[in-house]
Amino acid sequence: MAPVTNGRELFNEIVPAGELPTPGKTTVYDTSETIDFDTVPLNGGFLVKTLALSMDPLLLPSMRAPQKGQPMPPFPIGKPIMGVGIGVVLRSEHEGVEVGSHAYGALSHQEYSIVPTLKNPMQPVEIIKKNPKLSWTAQLGPTGLAGETAFCGWKEHSKAKKGETVFVSSGAGGVGSIVVQLAKKDGLKVIASAGTDAKVKFLKEIGADVAFNYKTTDTREVLAKEGPLDIYWDNVGGETFNAAIEATKMNARLIVSAAKSQANFNGTNQPIKVAGLFNARSLTMVGFNMFFLRYKHMAAFRGEYVPQVANGEFKYAEDIRHGLANAGEALLHALSGENVGKVSVIVAEE
Amino acid sequence: MAPVTNGRELFNEIVPAGELPTPGKTTVYDTSETIDFDTVPLNGGFLVKTLALSMDPLLLPSMRAPQKGQPMPPFPIGKPIMGVGIGVVLRSEHEGVEVGSHAYGALSHQEYSIVPTLKNPMQPVEIIKKNPKLSWTAQLGPTGLAGETAFCGWKEHSKAKKGETVFVSSGAGGVGSIVVQLAKKDGLKVIASAGTDAKVKFLKEIGADVAFNYKTTDTREVLAKEGPLDIYWDNVGGETFNAAIEATKMNARLIVSAAKSQANFNGTNQPIKVAGLFNARSLTMVGFNMFFLRYKHMAAFRGEYVPQVANGEFKYAEDIRHGLANAGEALLHALSGENVGKVSVIVAEE
Repeated sequence: MAPVTNGRELFNEIVPAGELPTPGKTTVYDTSETIDFDTVPLNGGFLVKTLALSMDPLLLPSMRAPQKGQPMPPFPIGKPIMGVGIGVVLRSEHEGVEVGSHAYGALSHQEYSIVPTLKNPMQPVEIIKKNPKLSWTAQLGPTGLAGETAFCGWKEHSKAKKGETVFVSSGAGGVGSIVVQLAKKDGLKVIASAGTDAKVKFLKEIGADVAFNYKTTDTREVLAKEGPLDIYWDNVGGETFNAAIEATKMNARLIVSAAKSQANFNGTNQPIKVAGLFNARSLTMVGFNMFFLRYKHMAAFRGEYVPQVANGEFKYAEDIRHGLANAGEALLHALSGENVGKVSVIVAEE
Repeated sequence: MAPVTNGRELFNEIVPAGELPTPGKTTVYDTSETIDFDTVPLNGGFLVKTLALSMDPLLLPSMRAPQKGQPMPPFPIGKPIMGVGIGVVLRSEHEGVEVGSHAYGALSHQEYSIVPTLKNPMQPVEIIKKNPKLSWTAQLGPTGLAGETAFCGWKEHSKAKKGETVFVSSGAGGVGSIVVQLAKKDGLKVIASAGTDAKVKFLKEIGADVAFNYKTTDTREVLAKEGPLDIYWDNVGGETFNAAIEATKMNARLIVSAAKSQANFNGTNQPIKVAGLFNARSLTMVGFNMFFLRYKHMAAFRGEYVPQVANGEFKYAEDIRHGLANAGEALLHALSGENVGKVSVIVAEE
């Protein structure tokens, strides 16, 4: 078979602190490379055709200048960026990986790529079965990294009790919308915020008891009326975090989710000003790194939660773009807050 | 018996945010009231002669303008302030409270006062036995509120494991010096900071592996060399907190102690700027309110820890003043950072 073009999204330029990526400048779409499926050396690995890529805010910290304590290593300039994706195996020299099976995990942003091994903990990739009731983009969203973040974080850290009150900021996002529904299943009163009226409408559809647009309604006023809070699930950081701390009950839990607040890492994350309340109210604030937490809850995630999503017990919205050439725009869209639901890019049909 | 003067320390004026109390202005010592031990109505309570009072930074928040979420209610203007103290019972109408027994708990800052009941959770007072090996001021310090704060906070929240590294700010204070020794007993490497060379010397005497004066040595440099940290015990807040967060390992615990950072409540507590690291490193930050936590650990505190203090297994320093008239100065001294060890006021000999 003749070589074919292997489109790649290359990391081109560091994103300055406080700024968002610029498509075509931060990353460039490159078509200069070709690949021959039959002859490309696999060196014991396997060749994957990328089907779908998740546009996660978590990609942004690795686009910033290198800094101590980054959640993931910085992307090397001139190389393809890497994120969570799904692909189909075209050729394999790897034990247990068959042609036609599906790989889920850390994939390069290129149309075709070689995964060297399933055993590198720094590039976790696993072989998964397609759930006939879920699309590939759903497997990147409500049952992918966003769902894992919501499920594992909630199970590990919420200590939720029936009748308690939770506030979820960015509640209509990929993570937040699942947290809202997990909280409702646990019998909590759910307050949720979002930045557009379309998202507020979606929040009501998925069962939030109180949903408001934080751009037109004062968060502190809503929390004063509908709180106080037993749990705050933070997807945004900044002044919303301070408002939530002020509205806590005794023994409240503040969960820093791996979403926007982490995206703002290295620059624009606004400080927590009311740390003094941690004593007065015996507060706990926890962050979690999904890279380490996911293994602990995967059995329950796959055995209990994923079937519930497949059976329609959870609602979710998707915001799908097509073509790897549009991945830069898609990521910016995910970071902009305009999206309703999880942003994914379909790179190819199977 | 003829009435005697009942000296009182009255709360006179709110302390502005960011300022420290001014003796003679914030509180005034008043001798206008007399009391007749034989005829003063007890209404079912008991009459206490105050022996010693603890000068806790925790008193300051109640001297500030009323604010939501204060650890303790604000002091009413014109009334005696209230803190932790020890007294001897002179007369009693209260079941189980005998003349000559000793009361420990929330006492008014006056030479003689009436405790209405042992059953008011908002004014916790209990009858204690004198430990022959411990002075009353020791029972207000290493085996009093400061010791309780260190012991209960450490047992509840440190999750300490042998070989881990802890940083204790304000390590020479009443709470910090006990935390340093509890951590050494648990087999940890202890880094501790203080603000004078005399305190640094004391830190070395009580076993800190690394002790430094944060005014003359850069905290970040010490932590870069001696860290990273599994645990940070925070007694100060502010930039030290940010430096400690930056120096954490994965899964580190940040314990906000009820000391100086709480004293700075309502004004000068500097913000936590590096909340983004909470995700990357799965950090936990906890505050605790002793008012609620102490009951959980009192059996171990009295049964195990207090005998160890009495047997000399813990070292402690005391900074003692005499006379209720000097309580205002003594509290300012405790807040100034000049003290080595716990500041107490001996109001009367038994």
